[in-house]
Amino acid sequence: MIPFQLNDELLAQIKSDIEQRKTAALKRRANEYHYADLAEIIDELSTDEGVYLIKLLDSEKTSDVITELDEDIRERILESLSVKEIAEEVEELDTDDAVDLIAELSEERQAEVIAQIEDEARVQDIQELLSYDEDSAGGLMAKELVKVNENWTVTKCMREMRVQATEVKRVHSIYVVDDNNVLIGRLSLKDLLTSNDRAKIKSIYIPKVDFVYVNDEGEDVAKLMAKYDLEAIPVVDESKKLLGRITIDDIVDFIKEEADKDYQLAAGISTDVEADDSIIDLTKARLPWLILGLFGGLGSVFILEGFEEVMTHPSYKALFFYTPLIAAMAGNVGVQSSAIIVQGLANDIVKGSLFSRLVKEVSLSLINGVALGGLLIAFGYFLGLETSVSFTIALSMLCVIVVSALVGTFVPIILNKNNIDPAIATGPFITTSNDIFGIFLFFYIAKILLGF
Amino acid sequence: MIPFQLNDELLAQIKSDIEQRKTAALKRRANEYHYADLAEIIDELSTDEGVYLIKLLDSEKTSDVITELDEDIRERILESLSVKEIAEEVEELDTDDAVDLIAELSEERQAEVIAQIEDEARVQDIQELLSYDEDSAGGLMAKELVKVNENWTVTKCMREMRVQATEVKRVHSIYVVDDNNVLIGRLSLKDLLTSNDRAKIKSIYIPKVDFVYVNDEGEDVAKLMAKYDLEAIPVVDESKKLLGRITIDDIVDFIKEEADKDYQLAAGISTDVEADDSIIDLTKARLPWLILGLFGGLGSVFILEGFEEVMTHPSYKALFFYTPLIAAMAGNVGVQSSAIIVQGLANDIVKGSLFSRLVKEVSLSLINGVALGGLLIAFGYFLGLETSVSFTIALSMLCVIVVSALVGTFVPIILNKNNIDPAIATGPFITTSNDIFGIFLFFYIAKILLGF
Repeated sequence: MIPFQLNDELLAQIKSDIEQRKTAALKRRANEYHYADLAEIIDELSTDEGVYLIKLLDSEKTSDVITELDEDIRERILESLSVKEIAEEVEELDTDDAVDLIAELSEERQAEVIAQIEDEARVQDIQELLSYDEDSAGGLMAKELVKVNENWTVTKCMREMRVQATEVKRVHSIYVVDDNNVLIGRLSLKDLLTSNDRAKIKSIYIPKVDFVYVNDEGEDVAKLMAKYDLEAIPVVDESKKLLGRITIDDIVDFIKEEADKDYQLAAGISTDVEADDSIIDLTKARLPWLILGLFGGLGSVFILEGFEEVMTHPSYKALFFYTPLIAAMAGNVGVQSSAIIVQGLANDIVKGSLFSRLVKEVSLSLINGVALGGLLIAFGYFLGLETSVSFTIALSMLCVIVVSALVGTFVPIILNKNNIDPAIATGPFITTSNDIFGIFLFFYIAKILLGF
Repeated sequence: MIPFQLNDELLAQIKSDIEQRKTAALKRRANEYHYADLAEIIDELSTDEGVYLIKLLDSEKTSDVITELDEDIRERILESLSVKEIAEEVEELDTDDAVDLIAELSEERQAEVIAQIEDEARVQDIQELLSYDEDSAGGLMAKELVKVNENWTVTKCMREMRVQATEVKRVHSIYVVDDNNVLIGRLSLKDLLTSNDRAKIKSIYIPKVDFVYVNDEGEDVAKLMAKYDLEAIPVVDESKKLLGRITIDDIVDFIKEEADKDYQLAAGISTDVEADDSIIDLTKARLPWLILGLFGGLGSVFILEGFEEVMTHPSYKALFFYTPLIAAMAGNVGVQSSAIIVQGLANDIVKGSLFSRLVKEVSLSLINGVALGGLLIAFGYFLGLETSVSFTIALSMLCVIVVSALVGTFVPIILNKNNIDPAIATGPFITTSNDIFGIFLFFYIAKILLGF
């Protein structure tokens, strides 16, 4: 299968077709595309062009396209659609996507859209889903699922499933409930297909079933589904009544978003932005971290000013030439240590006592520090640096590396213990604090060793 | 559902049970755990303890546990198992997992294990899968799937599916092939359940089916499945003959691994390591980047030495105090720009011409640079810095920021055009080169402006 590739020619042609109102040709062409590809096209069009194209689509396609659009494009397109048009889209979507769409409207428009929906059960489902936190299991789940009663026979079960299946895009698991809608197990399609028609569900269902509570955090649900290779998981309330289910496709998006977020935090980008976002959005995401870096830099200015008199010393002034090197090493080591810990915490693989972790980080940074210090002394020899100075620089660098590694290791652990996202501690935060710390330590140790 | 949490007490108890050979209790306990949890436990045991525990497990569980183990632990455990024991595990697993397991053995042992497998068809499947590149669609796929012939009736289809389903863990899609095993479409379970028993598959199947070729890259398959929300995708050869299928659970692992790898590259960690890996493995992954940083730092030493005479000037020597600040800003800006581009490239959202990207990055960095420069001048005023010096520092910083942003943007784009993983350009690579570049630019511009 050759994946769809949006190129400039195609885009230009679509734009010109829209301008010339070539309705029939556009309609035919657009309805052939996958909704994800159409969303990619509309992301590149103006709002007017996008709305024009969307109105040409088959109704069952429109809603999926809207769900896939970039957030800011979607917002603008929704503003250009009438309440009635939005309500029609909402009726086409699975409840989880419908709710995601409605949640983006103003409260006033939300009420207007919901008032337009005729199906009472659907209105109830949507209002229930709107009440959950967006990042909780309730906020991720859909109401659509296939469930059967333990007292049914295989034949009745098949009949009921045919009815339910028309409502559900993909069947995944078949959940088994008792007369009170309490989740008691699941039914494998395999067992259903291979069982006698008159057998009771009671006799063939699997009582072991994974589930999550409606208030569980989305991140925990994602971890659980990835760890246990689950493709769908039922969601229950405190009394284990079956409320809905979460499917792996929603979780794949969630995992990608989480990974992107951590990556951006490590790079000093604070909100979720993309290369194609506006300059203002990108500035908002980037400038705060740069200001943090500026303050950190000013901190190192103060420290260096404190050692101003060293500049007049014929050999010791070399320390100033080595300052950026020391700062860079402190930053690099800190980021390495923190990244490994942050990733370990995210995947639950940081075990053992704090003490054993301390021993490990110190050993590791001693090895790195000795290797790098050795290299530095060798270079100093060839460059004709005074031996006492080059040994001092190497030794201070060793100390800076050890301390930076410890800061990089323990700041994320401490943040995590206090329920703060440890990913915030990677990137600019660690580099900046380690820059200041490293430079101070470097000059201070040199002062003691060289005695100035 | 309360997710399993491995804690020190539990681990200590299991270890002591193993030591005291409490076979019955251990067996009962171990077989209650999910295989993923058992793998987590065994990852923390010694090889001998692990092998002992694995041999207590029910045979259908053992193979799944082994597949979930950490790579180095798995390797050691496989070494402790006999060829016959490994062959038994291989027979329990789905073909894709079986092949992953076999691929970790030496070639000699591979042949020995395969010779022990009795099922001829399975041996063929395994040998076929072993022939594909690990990171290709062929390397990710399993041979197990449910397929039906277009000429069957619904009744025959149901009967055949019952047989096939016993071989397949989860049914996902039902693929439709012609008499030559060429993939022609898929069958929705919904349509099958709601169709007349005597209807031909021909009349109810969906001819539109996504598929990938056996030699497609795994990364592209992952993108495709995530974009189109696919839970399984069939794999075909060049003549569209159906060879196997890839399921989303394998892709979730793949996406996580890819994200982890990019994150580590950005943090200056070159091979896939975890917090709990050995000190030697961690050093191997981290030291090379630190050595790169050291060379970069030495580069800046040379540059600074070139401006040595500035140290004797009463006002201009302040430039040396500001050097770490400039280096930090150059590094931070470069990492931000490169991270956004790398992520954009990974998600295919970097569009438009190189020129428009250039305009955008320059505008963005001018805004940031002016804001930060303004702050710096304000600080300089309060700190009593000479006006000409503080303006010079602010202006050079502005230039450094613009250049760093451009380097951060274009290095990944150029690498990508030359088919080199752009993720390598984030982190230490960009910070180090921008450090040197930034410091040189800073002093050079200051030299021109202040005329020393």
